[in-house]
Amino acid sequence: MIIPVKWSDEGVLMLDQRLLPTEEKWLTLKTYTEVADGIRDMVVRGAPAIGVSTAYGIALGMRQFVGTNMVDFEDELDYICEVLFKTRPTAVNLGWAIDEMKKTFAKAKSESKSISEIKEILLERAKEIHDEDIEAQRLIADFGGELIEDNSTVLTHCNAGALATGGVWGTALGVIRGAVNQGKNIHVFADETRPYLQGARLTAWELHEDNIPVTLITDNMSGYMMKKGRVQAVVVGSDRIAANGDVANKIGTYMVAVLAKEHGIPFYVAAPLSTVDLNCPTGDQIPIEERDSREVTHIKDIQLAPEGIGIGNPAFDVTPNHLVTAIITEKGVARAPYTESLKKQFEE
Amino acid sequence: MIIPVKWSDEGVLMLDQRLLPTEEKWLTLKTYTEVADGIRDMVVRGAPAIGVSTAYGIALGMRQFVGTNMVDFEDELDYICEVLFKTRPTAVNLGWAIDEMKKTFAKAKSESKSISEIKEILLERAKEIHDEDIEAQRLIADFGGELIEDNSTVLTHCNAGALATGGVWGTALGVIRGAVNQGKNIHVFADETRPYLQGARLTAWELHEDNIPVTLITDNMSGYMMKKGRVQAVVVGSDRIAANGDVANKIGTYMVAVLAKEHGIPFYVAAPLSTVDLNCPTGDQIPIEERDSREVTHIKDIQLAPEGIGIGNPAFDVTPNHLVTAIITEKGVARAPYTESLKKQFEE
Repeated sequence: MIIPVKWSDEGVLMLDQRLLPTEEKWLTLKTYTEVADGIRDMVVRGAPAIGVSTAYGIALGMRQFVGTNMVDFEDELDYICEVLFKTRPTAVNLGWAIDEMKKTFAKAKSESKSISEIKEILLERAKEIHDEDIEAQRLIADFGGELIEDNSTVLTHCNAGALATGGVWGTALGVIRGAVNQGKNIHVFADETRPYLQGARLTAWELHEDNIPVTLITDNMSGYMMKKGRVQAVVVGSDRIAANGDVANKIGTYMVAVLAKEHGIPFYVAAPLSTVDLNCPTGDQIPIEERDSREVTHIKDIQLAPEGIGIGNPAFDVTPNHLVTAIITEKGVARAPYTESLKKQFEE
Repeated sequence: MIIPVKWSDEGVLMLDQRLLPTEEKWLTLKTYTEVADGIRDMVVRGAPAIGVSTAYGIALGMRQFVGTNMVDFEDELDYICEVLFKTRPTAVNLGWAIDEMKKTFAKAKSESKSISEIKEILLERAKEIHDEDIEAQRLIADFGGELIEDNSTVLTHCNAGALATGGVWGTALGVIRGAVNQGKNIHVFADETRPYLQGARLTAWELHEDNIPVTLITDNMSGYMMKKGRVQAVVVGSDRIAANGDVANKIGTYMVAVLAKEHGIPFYVAAPLSTVDLNCPTGDQIPIEERDSREVTHIKDIQLAPEGIGIGNPAFDVTPNHLVTAIITEKGVARAPYTESLKKQFEE
C-alpha cells in the first residue's frame, strides 16, 4: 500500500519521488518552507498529493507559530499560504487545500478558539483532507473500474497513481486498480512521459509493486499501439478540470486524446471533485507552467542536446471536452455536457 | 558541410553518431564486418546513409577478396551482401544498394572484366551511389523548399538530415535547408525522438551547426504546439515508402501525422526514390524492427524504469497515405493517388 505523504510529529514525511524507481528514500520536512521546496522540486507531485501536502504544510507552519496574537497568527497563515500557493501554478488542488485550511481557520476563529486550539484544529483538518482524498480515490476506483472491460489493455500517461495522491489507489491508476479488484484481467501501457519520466519511474514502479502487468512505452509509441488494436481504453488523471470539462493534465495528454478519438478508443479522466475548478469556465483560463529547460536537455548529468538551441518545456496541456468520453469523480461518472454534469456533482 | 560517411584507402570513415552532440569522433572501419557492425550499432543511421554505407561496405569487402577464382568472388559477394542485409530490416535503401552493387558486378562479369578490374568498378559504383545520393538531396531541397512558406515554423521528427544521408543536405532537413537557401525565414521544432534521441542529439546539432534556429521539444509536445498555432508544416524522412504511398518512418511519425491532419497542417515526406519500394504494395508489408529494450529503460548507465516490467520498442511505424500531403523526391513532388504518381516518377 503506497502512501507518499504522511504526517508525523517530526514534520511531513515524503517519499522522495525524484529517486524512484531505483531508490526508496523518505524525507522529513520540518518546516513549511521545506514542504514548499518539496512541492516545487517535485519530491511529491500530482495534483491531489500536492493538495494533501499543502494542507500538512500549512498545519506544520502554523504549529510552529510562536506568538500569542491572533492578528499575527492570521498574518502568518496568509503568508504561509502565499508561499505554498506559488510553488506550482497548474494544480488547482493546491488552491483548494489553501481555501479549506483558511475556511477551517475562519470557522475556529469565529468560535473564539484559542491559538493552541486552532493549531490542533488545522492539523486535524489536514489529516481529514488526507483521509477524504483516499476515500475519494476508493470511490473513483469503484465507479471507474466498472467502465473498464475484462481482458483489456489500458493506456495511461504520466502518473496519476497512489504516488500522485494521498495514497493507496490513485486516480487513473485507481480506475485500473478498481477494475483489477473487480476481478478483471487488465494489462497497462504506461507512457514514459518525458521529460520528467513519471510513467517510467513512477507508474511502472507502482503497478509492478502491485503485480499489475505493465508495459512501458515511449510517448511516441501510443499511436502505433492504438493502430495495432492493442489499446482498449485510455485513463488519465488531471491537474485542473474547467467547468466545461476541458482537462489540463501532463503535457502529451492532448495528443493521446486526439489519437484515442482517431481510433475510437474511450478516453477517461479520473480526478477528485477538488480538481474541478468551477471558477474556470474553459481550459483557456488554465495557467500552463513552463519548467526549467534542463529537464529536457539533461538526464541527471548526461547532456542529451547541443548547447545554444531553444528548448520548449510546457509541463501541461489542455484536452478539450469533446475528446473526453467521461470524467470519473468520487460522485460518479460525468458525461457531456460537462457544464451541467460537473455542476450537478457539486450540488449532490 | 556535414558528410557522415566517407571512403578512404584505409576503409570506410564514419562519424560516430552515437557520441553526438557532445563529441565528434570519426571511426575508420577496416572490414565489411566492421561496416555491418557500424550499421547495426547505429554508428550511422538513416535510410539513405545506410544505403551509401552498405555500398561502401560491399566495395571494401570485395577489395579484400584474396582469391583468383570468379566463382569464389561471386560467392563472397553474395555472402557479404547477406551479412549487410541482415543488419537493419526496415530501411529499403539497404536492399536497394545491395541490388545496385550486384547489378554492377553482373554487368562487369558479363563484360569479362578481371577480378581486380571488378574490384575497382564496385568501388567506383559505391562512390557514384554516394554522389547520386547527395545530388538527389539537392533536388529534394529545391523542390521541397518551394512548399515551405516564408516566416514559418516547420516541425520535424527524428533526424532526416545530412547525418541520415550521404551528406550535405538531408531529406527532411534538405527541404528546410532548401527553404532557407531560397531566402525564407524558417524556425524548426525538433522532436527529441525517444528512445534514441535522434532529434535532440542529431537534428538539433545539425541545424545549430548551420545556424538555422531550432527549438527542441519532447515528442509529447508537438500536439500542444500545433494547437497553439505554432507549427505551419511538418516534414519528415522515410525508411521505406510503399507503392501506395504508405510511409514507414521513425516511431512516432504516425502520431505527428494524425495530429497534423487534426490541425490542418500539411504533412510532407522527403525521400530519394531509392526509398520507394514498388514491390511493397502497402505499408502492411513493411517489416518493423523491434529494438533492444535497454534503449527505453536506460540512458547510458542511468536506469529510468524498474526492473521486471514489459518494454515495447518498435523502431518504426507506418503512416497511411491519406495522412500524407505530398512526397518529395529528386524527381519532384508526388501527390495522391500515390500508386500512380510514384510509379510515374520511376518511369521519368
